Amino acid sequence: MNLLLVERDELTCTETSPHGELVLSDDRARHLREVLRVSPGRRVRVGVIDGGVGEAEVLFVEGERVALRALGFSAAPPVPRVDLVLAIPRPKVLKRLWAPLASLGVGRVMLTNASRVERFYFDSHAVRPETYRPRLVEGLAQARDTRLPSVEVHKSLKILVEDELDARCPDARRLLADPAYDRSAYDAAHGTAKERSIVLALGPEGGWNDFERDLLERHGFVGVGLGRRVLRSDIAALALLAIVHEAIGG
Amino acid sequence: MNLLLVERDELTCTETSPHGELVLSDDRARHLREVLRVSPGRRVRVGVIDGGVGEAEVLFVEGERVALRALGFSAAPPVPRVDLVLAIPRPKVLKRLWAPLASLGVGRVMLTNASRVERFYFDSHAVRPETYRPRLVEGLAQARDTRLPSVEVHKSLKILVEDELDARCPDARRLLADPAYDRSAYDAAHGTAKERSIVLALGPEGGWNDFERDLLERHGFVGVGLGRRVLRSDIAALALLAIVHEAIGG
Repeated sequence: MNLLLVERDELTCTETSPHGELVLSDDRARHLREVLRVSPGRRVRVGVIDGGVGEAEVLFVEGERVALRALGFSAAPPVPRVDLVLAIPRPKVLKRLWAPLASLGVGRVMLTNASRVERFYFDSHAVRPETYRPRLVEGLAQARDTRLPSVEVHKSLKILVEDELDARCPDARRLLADPAYDRSAYDAAHGTAKERSIVLALGPEGGWNDFERDLLERHGFVGVGLGRRVLRSDIAALALLAIVHEAIGG
Repeated sequence: MNLLLVERDELTCTETSPHGELVLSDDRARHLREVLRVSPGRRVRVGVIDGGVGEAEVLFVEGERVALRALGFSAAPPVPRVDLVLAIPRPKVLKRLWAPLASLGVGRVMLTNASRVERFYFDSHAVRPETYRPRLVEGLAQARDTRLPSVEVHKSLKILVEDELDARCPDARRLLADPAYDRSAYDAAHGTAKERSIVLALGPEGGWNDFERDLLERHGFVGVGLGRRVLRSDIAALALLAIVHEAIGG
Protein backbone atom coordinates (compact mmCIF):
# COMPACT_ATOMS: atom_id res chain seq x y z
CA MET A 1 0.00 0.00 0.00
CA ASN A 2 1.74 3.12 -1.27
CA LEU A 3 -1.19 5.45 -0.59
CA LEU A 4 -3.76 5.28 2.20
CA LEU A 5 -7.09 5.67 0.41
CA VAL A 6 -10.18 6.90 2.21
CA GLU A 7 -13.73 7.64 1.13
CA ARG A 8 -14.69 11.28 1.19
CA ASP A 9 -17.49 10.66 3.69
CA GLU A 10 -15.10 8.99 6.12
CA LEU A 11 -13.56 12.41 6.78
CA THR A 12 -15.19 14.59 9.42
CA CYS A 13 -14.32 18.25 9.14
CA THR A 14 -14.12 20.43 12.25
CA GLU A 15 -12.86 23.90 12.99
CA THR A 16 -9.45 22.56 14.01
CA SER A 17 -9.39 19.99 11.18
CA PRO A 18 -10.77 21.77 8.14
CA HIS A 19 -9.51 18.98 5.81
CA GLY A 20 -11.04 16.28 7.96
CA GLU A 21 -10.24 13.66 10.60
CA LEU A 22 -10.95 9.98 10.76
CA VAL A 23 -10.44 6.96 12.99
CA LEU A 24 -9.56 3.69 11.26
CA SER A 25 -9.82 0.20 12.73
CA ASP A 26 -9.77 -1.98 9.60
CA ASP A 27 -6.99 -3.36 7.38
CA ARG A 28 -5.73 0.16 6.76
CA ALA A 29 -5.25 0.67 10.51
CA ARG A 30 -3.43 -2.67 10.69
CA HIS A 31 -1.14 -1.58 7.84
CA LEU A 32 -0.38 1.71 9.61
CA ARG A 33 0.33 -0.08 12.90
CA GLU A 34 2.14 -3.20 11.74
CA VAL A 35 3.88 -2.24 8.49
CA LEU A 36 4.47 1.49 8.83
CA ARG A 37 4.57 1.27 12.68
CA VAL A 38 3.23 4.78 13.00
CA SER A 39 3.10 6.78 16.21
CA PRO A 40 1.49 10.17 16.97
CA GLY A 41 2.94 12.98 14.89
CA ARG A 42 3.98 10.74 12.01
CA ARG A 43 2.82 11.91 8.62
CA VAL A 44 1.49 9.53 5.98
CA ARG A 45 0.42 9.96 2.36
CA VAL A 46 -3.37 9.94 2.06
CA GLY A 47 -5.72 10.09 -0.92
CA VAL A 48 -9.45 10.53 -1.20
CA ILE A 49 -11.10 8.12 -3.63
CA ASP A 50 -11.82 10.15 -6.79
CA GLY A 51 -10.29 13.14 -5.01
CA GLY A 52 -6.91 14.63 -4.23
CA VAL A 53 -3.72 13.34 -2.63
CA GLY A 54 -2.10 14.87 0.45
CA GLU A 55 -0.68 14.19 3.87
CA ALA A 56 -2.28 13.27 7.16
CA GLU A 57 -0.85 13.35 10.68
CA VAL A 58 -1.33 10.50 13.09
CA LEU A 59 -3.22 11.78 16.17
CA PHE A 60 -3.25 8.62 18.26
CA VAL A 61 -2.86 4.84 18.11
CA GLU A 62 -5.08 3.00 20.60
CA GLY A 63 -5.48 -0.76 20.43
CA GLU A 64 -6.62 -1.48 16.89
CA ARG A 65 -7.55 2.11 16.18
CA VAL A 66 -5.49 4.77 14.42
CA ALA A 67 -6.72 8.38 14.28
CA LEU A 68 -5.57 10.73 11.53
CA ARG A 69 -5.98 14.40 10.69
CA ALA A 70 -5.70 15.38 7.04
CA LEU A 71 -3.40 18.34 6.40
CA GLY A 72 -4.68 19.25 2.92
CA PHE A 73 -5.16 17.74 -0.49
CA SER A 74 -4.00 18.49 -4.03
CA ALA A 75 -6.49 18.56 -6.88
CA ALA A 76 -7.61 15.13 -8.05
CA PRO A 77 -5.23 13.49 -10.56
CA PRO A 78 -6.45 13.17 -14.15
CA VAL A 79 -8.64 10.22 -15.08
CA PRO A 80 -6.59 7.57 -16.99
CA ARG A 81 -7.00 8.00 -20.74
CA VAL A 82 -7.64 4.36 -21.56
CA ASP A 83 -11.04 2.68 -21.38
CA LEU A 84 -11.62 -1.03 -21.89
CA VAL A 85 -14.33 -2.99 -23.63
CA LEU A 86 -13.55 -6.35 -22.12
CA ALA A 87 -15.20 -9.65 -23.01
CA ILE A 88 -15.82 -11.10 -19.55
CA PRO A 89 -12.97 -13.45 -18.67
CA ARG A 90 -13.40 -16.56 -16.54
CA PRO A 91 -14.38 -15.50 -12.99
CA LYS A 92 -11.08 -16.68 -11.48
CA VAL A 93 -9.11 -14.72 -14.10
CA LEU A 94 -11.26 -11.60 -13.76
CA LYS A 95 -10.92 -11.61 -9.97
CA ARG A 96 -7.15 -11.43 -10.12
CA LEU A 97 -7.26 -8.87 -12.94
CA TRP A 98 -9.05 -6.08 -11.06
CA ALA A 99 -6.14 -4.81 -8.97
CA PRO A 100 -3.54 -4.80 -11.80
CA LEU A 101 -6.00 -3.07 -14.16
CA ALA A 102 -6.49 -0.28 -11.63
CA SER A 103 -2.77 0.03 -10.95
CA LEU A 104 -1.89 0.25 -14.66
CA GLY A 105 -4.64 2.84 -15.03
CA VAL A 106 -8.03 2.57 -16.69
CA GLY A 107 -10.91 5.04 -16.75
CA ARG A 108 -13.86 2.82 -17.54
CA VAL A 109 -14.23 -0.94 -17.76
CA MET A 110 -17.13 -2.05 -19.93
CA LEU A 111 -17.54 -5.78 -19.39
CA THR A 112 -19.39 -7.35 -22.25
CA ASN A 113 -20.75 -10.51 -23.71
CA ALA A 114 -19.13 -12.25 -26.70
CA SER A 115 -19.80 -15.53 -28.42
CA ARG A 116 -16.98 -17.19 -26.50
CA VAL A 117 -18.11 -15.81 -23.11
CA GLU A 118 -20.01 -18.36 -21.01
CA ARG A 119 -23.42 -17.13 -19.80
CA PHE A 120 -22.73 -17.99 -16.17
CA TYR A 121 -19.85 -15.49 -16.04
CA PHE A 122 -22.50 -12.75 -15.75
CA ASP A 123 -23.72 -14.22 -12.48
CA SER A 124 -20.31 -14.82 -10.95
CA HIS A 125 -19.17 -12.91 -7.87
CA ALA A 126 -16.22 -11.54 -9.92
CA VAL A 127 -18.54 -9.02 -11.65
CA ARG A 128 -20.12 -7.76 -8.40
CA PRO A 129 -19.09 -4.45 -6.81
CA GLU A 130 -18.37 -6.09 -3.44
CA THR A 131 -15.74 -8.19 -5.24
CA TYR A 132 -14.22 -5.68 -7.64
CA ARG A 133 -14.37 -2.44 -5.66
CA PRO A 134 -11.91 -3.44 -2.89
CA ARG A 135 -9.59 -4.93 -5.52
CA LEU A 136 -9.70 -1.77 -7.62
CA VAL A 137 -8.97 0.31 -4.51
CA GLU A 138 -6.03 -2.00 -3.71
CA GLY A 139 -4.68 -1.38 -7.23
CA LEU A 140 -5.07 2.38 -6.87
CA ALA A 141 -3.34 2.35 -3.47
CA GLN A 142 -0.44 0.46 -5.08
CA ALA A 143 -0.17 2.96 -7.96
CA ARG A 144 -0.77 6.07 -5.79
CA ASP A 145 -3.81 6.97 -7.82
CA THR A 146 -7.26 7.96 -6.54
CA ARG A 147 -9.36 7.62 -9.70
CA LEU A 148 -11.58 4.60 -9.23
CA PRO A 149 -12.36 3.01 -12.61
CA SER A 150 -16.06 2.88 -13.35
CA VAL A 151 -17.32 -0.61 -14.13
CA GLU A 152 -20.34 -1.52 -16.23
CA VAL A 153 -21.76 -4.84 -17.36
CA HIS A 154 -23.22 -5.00 -20.87
CA LYS A 155 -25.18 -8.08 -21.84
CA SER A 156 -24.93 -7.24 -25.54
CA LEU A 157 -21.78 -6.15 -27.35
CA LYS A 158 -23.98 -5.05 -30.28
CA ILE A 159 -26.09 -2.65 -28.20
CA LEU A 160 -23.00 -1.32 -26.44
CA VAL A 161 -21.16 -0.63 -29.68
CA GLU A 162 -24.10 0.58 -31.77
CA ASP A 163 -26.04 2.62 -29.23
CA GLU A 164 -24.02 3.43 -26.14
CA LEU A 165 -20.33 3.77 -26.85
CA ASP A 166 -20.45 7.17 -28.58
CA ALA A 167 -21.93 8.80 -25.49
CA ARG A 168 -19.63 6.99 -23.08
CA CYS A 169 -16.35 7.54 -24.89
CA PRO A 170 -16.85 10.55 -27.17
CA ASP A 171 -14.03 11.27 -29.61
CA ALA A 172 -11.93 8.34 -28.36
CA ARG A 173 -9.58 6.49 -30.66
CA ARG A 174 -10.83 2.90 -30.95
CA LEU A 175 -8.56 -0.15 -30.97
CA LEU A 176 -9.57 -3.77 -31.31
CA ALA A 177 -7.11 -6.37 -30.03
CA ASP A 178 -7.24 -9.80 -31.59
CA PRO A 179 -4.76 -12.44 -32.79
CA ALA A 180 -6.24 -11.89 -36.28
CA TYR A 181 -4.38 -8.59 -36.69
CA ASP A 182 -0.72 -7.79 -37.28
CA ARG A 183 -0.67 -4.06 -36.63
CA SER A 184 1.31 -2.94 -33.61
CA ALA A 185 -0.81 -1.60 -30.73
CA TYR A 186 1.90 0.93 -29.95
CA ASP A 187 1.91 2.33 -33.48
CA ALA A 188 -1.89 2.48 -33.58
CA ALA A 189 -2.07 4.39 -30.27
CA HIS A 190 1.00 6.57 -30.69
CA GLY A 191 0.40 10.20 -31.55
CA THR A 192 -3.02 10.38 -29.89
CA ALA A 193 -3.62 13.99 -28.84
CA LYS A 194 -3.31 14.70 -25.10
CA GLU A 195 -7.01 15.49 -24.75
CA ARG A 196 -8.17 12.30 -26.46
CA SER A 197 -8.56 8.92 -24.87
CA ILE A 198 -8.36 5.38 -26.23
CA VAL A 199 -10.96 2.62 -26.08
CA LEU A 200 -9.37 -0.78 -26.27
CA ALA A 201 -11.63 -3.76 -27.05
CA LEU A 202 -10.20 -7.02 -25.73
CA GLY A 203 -11.73 -10.30 -26.77
CA PRO A 204 -12.19 -13.54 -24.84
CA GLU A 205 -9.74 -16.44 -24.70
CA GLY A 206 -9.61 -17.46 -28.38
CA GLY A 207 -10.44 -13.98 -29.69
CA TRP A 208 -13.53 -12.22 -31.03
CA ASN A 209 -15.51 -14.09 -33.70
CA ASP A 210 -16.02 -12.85 -37.27
CA PHE A 211 -19.31 -11.13 -36.49
CA GLU A 212 -17.82 -9.30 -33.50
CA ARG A 213 -14.72 -8.18 -35.38
CA ASP A 214 -16.86 -6.95 -38.23
CA LEU A 215 -19.21 -5.09 -35.84
CA LEU A 216 -16.28 -3.39 -34.10
CA GLU A 217 -14.52 -2.53 -37.37
CA ARG A 218 -17.69 -0.98 -38.78
CA HIS A 219 -17.77 1.25 -35.71
CA GLY A 220 -14.29 2.62 -36.12
CA PHE A 221 -12.20 0.08 -34.23
CA VAL A 222 -8.74 -0.50 -35.73
CA GLY A 223 -7.38 -4.02 -35.28
CA VAL A 224 -4.10 -4.57 -33.44
CA GLY A 225 -2.23 -7.71 -32.41
CA LEU A 226 0.56 -8.81 -30.11
CA GLY A 227 2.58 -10.91 -32.53
CA ARG A 228 2.59 -14.65 -32.96
CA ARG A 229 2.47 -15.58 -29.25
CA VAL A 230 -0.90 -16.61 -27.82
CA LEU A 231 -1.36 -15.05 -24.37
CA ARG A 232 -3.76 -15.90 -21.57
CA SER A 233 -6.50 -13.26 -21.70
CA ASP A 234 -5.47 -11.57 -18.43
CA ILE A 235 -1.83 -11.35 -19.49
CA ALA A 236 -2.87 -10.01 -22.90
CA ALA A 237 -5.01 -7.36 -21.18
CA LEU A 238 -2.13 -6.22 -18.96
CA ALA A 239 0.36 -6.26 -21.85
CA LEU A 240 -1.89 -4.21 -24.14
CA LEU A 241 -2.82 -1.74 -21.41
CA ALA A 242 0.87 -1.20 -20.61
CA ILE A 243 1.75 -0.76 -24.30
CA VAL A 244 -1.08 1.70 -24.95
CA HIS A 245 -0.18 3.80 -21.89
CA GLU A 246 3.43 3.81 -23.02
CA ALA A 247 2.35 4.92 -26.51
CA ILE A 248 0.19 7.81 -25.32
CA GLY A 249 2.53 8.87 -22.53
CA GLY A 250 0.38 7.82 -19.58
CA MET B 1 -2.72 -25.49 -23.51
CA ASN B 2 -2.29 -24.35 -27.12
CA LEU B 3 0.64 -26.65 -27.83
CA LEU B 4 1.34 -30.12 -26.46
CA LEU B 5 4.95 -29.97 -25.30
CA VAL B 6 7.08 -33.07 -24.95
CA GLU B 7 10.68 -33.72 -24.00
CA ARG B 8 12.88 -34.97 -26.80
CA ASP B 9 13.72 -38.16 -24.92
CA GLU B 10 10.04 -39.00 -24.51
CA LEU B 11 9.90 -39.72 -28.24
CA THR B 12 10.83 -43.20 -29.40
CA CYS B 13 11.77 -43.42 -33.05
CA THR B 14 11.06 -46.57 -35.04
CA GLU B 15 11.10 -47.53 -38.68
CA THR B 16 7.38 -46.78 -39.04
CA SER B 17 7.60 -43.66 -36.83
CA PRO B 18 10.81 -41.90 -37.82
CA HIS B 19 9.77 -38.72 -35.97
CA GLY B 20 8.90 -40.62 -32.82
CA GLU B 21 6.02 -42.08 -30.83
CA LEU B 22 5.02 -41.67 -27.21
CA VAL B 23 2.38 -42.78 -24.74
CA LEU B 24 1.17 -40.18 -22.25
CA SER B 25 -0.71 -40.80 -19.01
CA ASP B 26 -0.20 -37.52 -17.16
CA ASP B 27 -1.94 -34.12 -17.23
CA ARG B 28 -1.24 -33.85 -20.93
CA ALA B 29 -3.12 -37.09 -21.55
CA ARG B 30 -5.98 -35.79 -19.43
CA HIS B 31 -6.06 -32.57 -21.48
CA LEU B 32 -6.14 -34.59 -24.73
CA ARG B 33 -8.94 -36.83 -23.42
CA GLU B 34 -11.10 -34.38 -21.50
CA VAL B 35 -10.60 -31.00 -23.18
CA LEU B 36 -9.71 -31.89 -26.77
CA ARG B 37 -11.67 -35.23 -26.57
CA VAL B 38 -9.33 -36.83 -29.07
CA SER B 39 -9.90 -40.18 -30.73
CA PRO B 40 -7.63 -42.26 -32.98
CA GLY B 41 -6.67 -40.46 -36.19
CA ARG B 42 -7.10 -36.98 -34.71
CA ARG B 43 -4.13 -34.66 -35.28
CA VAL B 44 -2.84 -32.33 -32.59
CA ARG B 45 -0.16 -29.63 -32.54
CA VAL B 46 2.97 -30.89 -30.78
CA GLY B 47 6.24 -29.21 -29.86
CA VAL B 48 9.53 -30.56 -28.58
CA ILE B 49 10.97 -28.52 -25.70
CA ASP B 50 13.80 -26.46 -27.23
CA GLY B 51 12.99 -28.07 -30.56
CA GLY B 52 10.53 -27.75 -33.41
CA VAL B 53 6.76 -27.62 -33.71
CA GLY B 54 4.68 -30.04 -35.75
CA GLU B 55 1.71 -32.36 -35.76
CA ALA B 56 1.11 -35.72 -34.16
CA GLU B 57 -1.59 -38.29 -34.84
CA VAL B 58 -3.47 -40.02 -32.05
CA LEU B 59 -2.86 -43.77 -32.29
CA PHE B 60 -5.09 -44.95 -29.44
CA VAL B 61 -6.84 -43.84 -26.25
CA GLU B 62 -6.96 -46.54 -23.57
CA GLY B 63 -8.08 -45.69 -20.06
CA GLU B 64 -5.83 -42.85 -18.94
CA ARG B 65 -3.33 -43.38 -21.73
CA VAL B 66 -3.08 -41.60 -25.05
CA ALA B 67 -0.60 -42.75 -27.69
CA LEU B 68 0.71 -40.37 -30.34
CA ARG B 69 2.87 -40.60 -33.42
CA ALA B 70 4.74 -37.47 -34.47
CA LEU B 71 4.38 -36.64 -38.17
CA GLY B 72 7.35 -34.26 -38.45
CA PHE B 73 8.70 -31.09 -36.93
CA SER B 74 9.70 -27.63 -38.17
CA ALA B 75 13.01 -26.11 -37.15
CA ALA B 76 13.05 -24.76 -33.58
CA PRO B 77 11.65 -21.21 -33.27
CA PRO B 78 14.15 -18.44 -32.49
CA VAL B 79 15.12 -17.81 -28.86
CA PRO B 80 13.30 -14.72 -27.51
CA ARG B 81 15.51 -11.64 -27.77
CA VAL B 82 14.92 -10.35 -24.26
CA ASP B 83 16.88 -11.51 -21.19
CA LEU B 84 16.08 -10.46 -17.64
CA VAL B 85 18.25 -9.56 -14.68
CA LEU B 86 15.58 -9.84 -12.02
CA ALA B 87 16.00 -8.97 -8.35
CA ILE B 88 14.32 -11.97 -6.72
CA PRO B 89 10.70 -11.10 -5.92
CA ARG B 90 8.84 -12.47 -2.91
CA PRO B 91 8.39 -16.25 -3.37
CA LYS B 92 4.61 -15.99 -3.81
CA VAL B 93 5.04 -13.32 -6.49
CA LEU B 94 7.83 -15.18 -8.28
CA LYS B 95 5.81 -18.38 -8.35
CA ARG B 96 2.96 -16.79 -10.27
CA LEU B 97 5.38 -14.90 -12.53
CA TRP B 98 7.06 -17.92 -14.14
CA ALA B 99 4.29 -18.90 -16.58
CA PRO B 100 3.53 -15.35 -17.82
CA LEU B 101 7.26 -14.62 -18.28
CA ALA B 102 7.61 -17.68 -20.48
CA SER B 103 4.47 -16.87 -22.45
CA LEU B 104 5.56 -13.27 -23.11
CA GLY B 105 8.96 -14.61 -24.15
CA VAL B 106 12.29 -14.44 -22.39
CA GLY B 107 15.59 -16.09 -23.28
CA ARG B 108 17.41 -16.07 -19.96
CA VAL B 109 16.30 -15.19 -16.44
CA MET B 110 19.15 -14.17 -14.18
CA LEU B 111 17.74 -13.99 -10.66
CA THR B 112 19.89 -11.85 -8.45
CA ASN B 113 20.37 -10.39 -5.04
CA ALA B 114 19.75 -6.70 -4.30
CA SER B 115 19.76 -4.70 -1.10
CA ARG B 116 15.97 -4.91 -0.88
CA VAL B 117 15.87 -8.68 -1.54
CA GLU B 118 15.40 -10.75 1.62
CA ARG B 119 18.05 -13.44 2.11
CA PHE B 120 15.49 -16.20 2.63
CA TYR B 121 14.17 -15.72 -0.93
CA PHE B 122 17.22 -17.66 -2.13
CA ASP B 123 16.09 -20.72 -0.19
CA SER B 124 12.44 -20.59 -1.21
CA HIS B 125 10.90 -23.27 -3.38
CA ALA B 126 10.04 -20.59 -5.98
CA VAL B 127 13.67 -20.56 -7.18
CA ARG B 128 13.93 -24.36 -7.54
CA PRO B 129 13.73 -26.09 -10.92
CA GLU B 130 10.96 -28.43 -9.74
CA THR B 131 8.85 -25.31 -9.12
CA TYR B 132 9.75 -23.14 -12.07
CA ARG B 133 10.25 -25.66 -14.84
CA PRO B 134 6.64 -26.92 -15.04
CA ARG B 135 5.41 -23.31 -14.83
CA LEU B 136 7.73 -22.21 -17.63
CA VAL B 137 6.56 -25.14 -19.76
CA GLU B 138 2.93 -24.15 -19.04
CA GLY B 139 3.71 -20.62 -20.26
CA LEU B 140 5.38 -21.95 -23.41
CA ALA B 141 2.43 -24.26 -24.14
CA GLN B 142 0.11 -21.24 -23.81
CA ALA B 143 2.23 -19.14 -26.19
CA ARG B 144 2.95 -22.00 -28.66
CA ASP B 145 6.66 -21.61 -28.08
CA THR B 146 9.19 -24.36 -27.36
CA ARG B 147 12.17 -22.33 -26.15
CA LEU B 148 12.51 -22.96 -22.44
CA PRO B 149 14.03 -19.90 -20.73
CA SER B 150 17.27 -20.70 -18.92
CA VAL B 151 17.21 -19.74 -15.27
CA GLU B 152 20.20 -18.86 -13.11
CA VAL B 153 20.52 -17.68 -9.52
CA HIS B 154 23.23 -15.12 -8.77
CA LYS B 155 24.00 -14.35 -5.15
CA SER B 156 25.84 -11.16 -6.07
CA LEU B 157 24.60 -8.53 -8.50
CA LYS B 158 28.10 -7.05 -8.54
CA ILE B 159 29.81 -10.27 -9.66
CA LEU B 160 27.08 -10.91 -12.23
CA VAL B 161 27.40 -7.44 -13.75
CA GLU B 162 31.17 -7.03 -13.52
CA ASP B 163 32.36 -10.52 -14.39
CA GLU B 164 29.65 -12.64 -15.99
CA LEU B 165 27.19 -10.60 -18.00
CA ASP B 166 29.46 -9.88 -20.98
CA ALA B 167 29.86 -13.56 -21.72
CA ARG B 168 26.19 -14.39 -21.10
CA CYS B 169 24.65 -11.60 -23.14
CA PRO B 170 27.29 -10.45 -25.61
CA ASP B 171 26.48 -7.31 -27.57
CA ALA B 172 23.05 -6.93 -25.92
CA ARG B 173 21.50 -3.53 -25.39
CA ARG B 174 21.19 -2.98 -21.63
CA LEU B 175 18.18 -1.36 -19.96
CA LEU B 176 17.69 -0.65 -16.28
CA ALA B 177 14.10 -0.22 -15.08
CA ASP B 178 13.55 1.88 -11.99
CA PRO B 179 11.07 4.53 -10.82
CA ALA B 180 14.07 6.91 -10.66
CA TYR B 181 14.10 7.28 -14.46
CA ASP B 182 11.79 9.11 -16.86
CA ARG B 183 12.95 7.72 -20.17
CA SER B 184 10.45 5.57 -22.03
CA ALA B 185 11.34 1.87 -22.21
CA TYR B 186 9.84 1.70 -25.70
CA ASP B 187 12.02 4.53 -26.99
CA ALA B 188 15.14 3.06 -25.40
CA ALA B 189 14.53 -0.38 -26.94
CA HIS B 190 13.17 0.73 -30.31
CA GLY B 191 15.51 0.44 -33.28
CA THR B 192 17.51 -2.44 -31.84
CA ALA B 193 18.95 -4.41 -34.75
CA LYS B 194 17.28 -7.78 -35.47
CA GLU B 195 20.36 -9.74 -34.47
CA ARG B 196 20.81 -7.97 -31.13
CA SER B 197 19.02 -8.80 -27.92
CA ILE B 198 18.05 -6.71 -24.89
CA VAL B 199 18.95 -7.29 -21.25
CA LEU B 200 16.40 -5.71 -18.96
CA ALA B 201 17.36 -5.26 -15.29
CA LEU B 202 14.30 -5.14 -13.02
CA GLY B 203 14.68 -4.08 -9.42
CA PRO B 204 12.89 -5.27 -6.32
CA GLU B 205 9.71 -3.76 -4.84
CA GLY B 206 10.87 -0.22 -4.05
CA GLY B 207 13.52 -0.16 -6.78
CA TRP B 208 17.29 -0.59 -6.95
CA ASN B 209 19.35 1.39 -4.44
CA ASP B 210 21.88 4.10 -5.36
CA PHE B 211 24.83 1.68 -5.38
CA GLU B 212 23.02 -0.78 -7.62
CA ARG B 213 21.86 1.89 -10.09
CA ASP B 214 25.37 3.29 -10.23
CA LEU B 215 26.89 -0.17 -10.78
CA LEU B 216 24.44 -0.94 -13.59
CA GLU B 217 24.88 2.48 -15.23
CA ARG B 218 28.67 2.12 -15.18
CA HIS B 219 28.22 -1.14 -17.06
CA GLY B 220 26.19 0.32 -19.88
CA PHE B 221 22.65 0.04 -18.55
CA VAL B 222 20.36 2.88 -19.64
CA GLY B 223 17.67 3.83 -17.11
CA VAL B 224 14.01 3.62 -18.12
CA GLY B 225 10.80 4.15 -16.17
CA LEU B 226 7.08 3.48 -16.44
CA GLY B 227 5.75 6.91 -15.52
CA ARG B 228 4.45 8.12 -12.19
CA ARG B 229 2.46 4.99 -11.28
CA VAL B 230 4.06 2.58 -8.81
CA LEU B 231 3.47 -1.00 -9.92
CA ARG B 232 3.76 -4.26 -8.03
CA SER B 233 7.03 -5.84 -9.12
CA ASP B 234 5.40 -8.70 -11.04
CA ILE B 235 3.08 -6.34 -12.92
CA ALA B 236 6.02 -4.04 -13.68
CA ALA B 237 7.97 -7.02 -15.03
CA LEU B 238 5.13 -8.09 -17.33
CA ALA B 239 4.47 -4.51 -18.47
CA LEU B 240 8.13 -3.86 -19.30
CA LEU B 241 8.60 -7.19 -21.02
CA ALA B 242 5.52 -6.54 -23.18
CA ILE B 243 6.70 -3.02 -24.04
CA VAL B 244 10.23 -4.11 -24.94
CA HIS B 245 8.95 -6.94 -27.16
CA GLU B 246 6.61 -4.48 -28.85
CA ALA B 247 9.51 -2.07 -29.40
CA ILE B 248 11.85 -4.64 -30.96
CA GLY B 249 9.12 -6.41 -32.93
CA GLY B 250 9.07 -9.66 -30.92
